[in-house]
Amino acid sequence: MSTDRRVVALTGGVGGAKLAHGLYRRLPPGALACIVNTGDDFRHLDLHVSPDIDTLIYTLGGVENPATGWGRRDETWTFMAVLEQLGGPDWFRLGDGDLAFHVERTRRLTAGERLTEVTDHLRRGLGVSAAVLPMADAPVRTIVHTVDAGTLTFQEYFVRHRAQPRVRALEYEGADHAEPPPEVVAALADPGLAAVVLCPSNPLLSVAPLLAVAGMRALLAACRAPVVAVSPLIGGAAVKGPTAKVMDELGIARTPEAIAEGYRGVIDALVIDPSDAASRDRCGLPVLVTPTLMDSTARREALADEVLDFAATLGRG
Amino acid sequence: MSTDRRVVALTGGVGGAKLAHGLYRRLPPGALACIVNTGDDFRHLDLHVSPDIDTLIYTLGGVENPATGWGRRDETWTFMAVLEQLGGPDWFRLGDGDLAFHVERTRRLTAGERLTEVTDHLRRGLGVSAAVLPMADAPVRTIVHTVDAGTLTFQEYFVRHRAQPRVRALEYEGADHAEPPPEVVAALADPGLAAVVLCPSNPLLSVAPLLAVAGMRALLAACRAPVVAVSPLIGGAAVKGPTAKVMDELGIARTPEAIAEGYRGVIDALVIDPSDAASRDRCGLPVLVTPTLMDSTARREALADEVLDFAATLGRG
Repeated sequence: MSTDRRVVALTGGVGGAKLAHGLYRRLPPGALACIVNTGDDFRHLDLHVSPDIDTLIYTLGGVENPATGWGRRDETWTFMAVLEQLGGPDWFRLGDGDLAFHVERTRRLTAGERLTEVTDHLRRGLGVSAAVLPMADAPVRTIVHTVDAGTLTFQEYFVRHRAQPRVRALEYEGADHAEPPPEVVAALADPGLAAVVLCPSNPLLSVAPLLAVAGMRALLAACRAPVVAVSPLIGGAAVKGPTAKVMDELGIARTPEAIAEGYRGVIDALVIDPSDAASRDRCGLPVLVTPTLMDSTARREALADEVLDFAATLGRG
Repeated sequence: MSTDRRVVALTGGVGGAKLAHGLYRRLPPGALACIVNTGDDFRHLDLHVSPDIDTLIYTLGGVENPATGWGRRDETWTFMAVLEQLGGPDWFRLGDGDLAFHVERTRRLTAGERLTEVTDHLRRGLGVSAAVLPMADAPVRTIVHTVDAGTLTFQEYFVRHRAQPRVRALEYEGADHAEPPPEVVAALADPGLAAVVLCPSNPLLSVAPLLAVAGMRALLAACRAPVVAVSPLIGGAAVKGPTAKVMDELGIARTPEAIAEGYRGVIDALVIDPSDAASRDRCGLPVLVTPTLMDSTARREALADEVLDFAATLGRG
């Protein structure tokens, strides 16, 4: 593809950040804009924590912690040690370097900056040349209604309860009233856009909040570029995290066709792993079968190339 | 002295904390209450920082940094490194462990606790058995009016400008409206009180704000125990910090008699270093001459013993 065409990636957690990283490395500087789930954001210790934004910035900036899937590499933990000594809330682990993001984010938000502006400042601080765009400046909160532990915020569910409670329903609180920020609108309306990539993030916990933001589906529908989703499933399982468990609990089959069905009206095509190739003809839209496991930078880049080349074959409008 | 009698220490920065530490080690658990200057408190990175309170808690808890005179020993600096990378304000150095105090303090204040309650929680977290009492729950801010750098908050003057600007006047903003918290009132009204010790802190920057709090002088005057000040001067100089410079700039002689004059109406007696012994008979009140340099734990304890024994010889109305 030509170097003057731009790409938007919609992404949530670790899996999405990996593909975004592949795209980032394969595209020229400034060509990638990532729209990021903020449904996992929460207030902890009076600090505004944005887990998916930070996972993405750390991954693109090359300081992510590959062992944990969250936080930073070469991290220290002195803050948590003292906080524990003080009997402070210690269920959510904040590394010392990670904390600088939360403190600086909170300080700037309190001073009146929009989350989009703050996030732009943070990604520049790490020398990241991709745009990192929160899906909304207003708060949207993924609420997990469980069978056995009541109603939980996402981090309570995911971290405090280790995603153990059985999920009954999901709610994206505030999504109806949130709006895509002007930067998101501009990125999706860009006439030079070559592709929109829906990264292999958890469809229910990461992508659904993005699509729930009022107006986001319309922006994607109006977009000139094809929208291509990458299935998070490999052989009917998820690489990591609670994707498979939550799909099971909500009665959604762990198949590419269920993914395609869930994204109906949003995507033009789907990328699936060879282990799910049997579903190829049951998705009802163009499908590319290519390895989607991204266990190395080379594989992230290879998948990015495949997805971009695939998108270039798809027309729209 | 008998073990059931209690002692109150009024203290500000490092020098005061050293004598408080000596008293703490020589008195039975629970016998010492420290009333601490909060005029240096400020908001930084949207966090409530209480430098003198923390210096005292760290010193009593045995985690102070003897090399710097502020902060904690065995500290890490990952937070500051990342904050600098983000272009955040880096003139005030916050160690990773130190940060836990500020975050937890701010969180509890925001939740509605008084500074006195929060401080009590923090000192207990470090296993400190002395009461650590802020001089006021309401904000009092030491403002430094300078000749060459305008009006500065204390930390701006002391840290950001390294105490370089020439001081024209000092102001203790909010002191008129602040009140000693009930815990301070109770400590000074304690019928079992054996002595009130005015620690060798900076008379203008640490002790004056304490005495400026509305009602504090009256509480000290009504107190049954003798009030004994320890001069911060040694041979007409200060051990550390801007004490001598600020006294010079405000036209206050660097002599024990000037210290005694400044504390007139508050103290019953003064402790001075042998290097200042020539002033002994010029102070207009009982004077004990004994070494006041506290460059070891043994010397802190020795001075504490001397001060307590001296106080025991003094009667009060």
